[in-house]
Amino acid sequence: MTGIRLRLEPLTRAAFAPFGDVIEIDGARHFPINGGTIERYHDLANVEIDSESGGRAIISIMTCNETASLPYRVRVIERHPRGSQAFIPMSPIRMIIVVAPPGDDPDPASLRAFMSDGEQGVNYRAGVWHMPLISERQDHAYLIVDRAGPGDNCDELSLDAHEIVVDI
Amino acid sequence: MTGIRLRLEPLTRAAFAPFGDVIEIDGARHFPINGGTIERYHDLANVEIDSESGGRAIISIMTCNETASLPYRVRVIERHPRGSQAFIPMSPIRMIIVVAPPGDDPDPASLRAFMSDGEQGVNYRAGVWHMPLISERQDHAYLIVDRAGPGDNCDELSLDAHEIVVDI
Repeated sequence: MTGIRLRLEPLTRAAFAPFGDVIEIDGARHFPINGGTIERYHDLANVEIDSESGGRAIISIMTCNETASLPYRVRVIERHPRGSQAFIPMSPIRMIIVVAPPGDDPDPASLRAFMSDGEQGVNYRAGVWHMPLISERQDHAYLIVDRAGPGDNCDELSLDAHEIVVDI
Repeated sequence: MTGIRLRLEPLTRAAFAPFGDVIEIDGARHFPINGGTIERYHDLANVEIDSESGGRAIISIMTCNETASLPYRVRVIERHPRGSQAFIPMSPIRMIIVVAPPGDDPDPASLRAFMSDGEQGVNYRAGVWHMPLISERQDHAYLIVDRAGPGDNCDELSLDAHEIVVDI
């Protein structure tokens, strides 16, 4: 048991840049369209899909069957080598996000934890290690934009040998 | 002036099938993932992107600078030949959706209008004519999943010569 305590950082574009995109209006490039009736906050997240294997982007919804609260023990992380994966709450809720940079043998000491502001979504770049979705409310709906297609696209890594806890 | 009154139909997968996908949990295929902690409502919308022209899928946000109410006069429809376009409210709000089947010369008599239930999102298939986003609340945020890339991807068609009004 090593015992690592991850302190939650505020989720900002700059801090999250090594791992992917923060999907939010604040600070985003925007311009009017349709004769000025609509404001478009443009290209907040790039949907990465490997084209060689015949993958395609799909939209899904996830809900959690259990609730989670702080302090939270991180038992597993996963990565999707063939595509990005975006999570956007379908009504406001804070999200706890735990990530590690891409690589076949992620160092538990490289893990970082972020807390969203309730409105934000995130898009994990292909290959970025991340904790599976947890939610402070059961059945809260999250919109998912990720890849479907042939080939294995999920590697899981158990962190049980390490005592990794997220807290404020 | 012809004068067409479009009566709002409830938005259901079956009724909307000729135009695209309804993004909702109700009636969707779902299965547990991540050891049963998460329920995934899978592949609710196919993100269509033309691959020949170097297009890619992006995630954006739109807000409306004006509010709209019923009865509503439809002045323009548009289509995106190179990709689908999804609209999902980032917190619950009903959406008025007006669509016509693909084709270079859409018949105003073929227009149909739908009202979502507040939770639902929609994904317009590539080439499907649709009214630009209108909103009953200013600055309400809608998540958009569509295409960026080279080439013209928006055709607009004025309906001013027709008096087309959406109402209950």
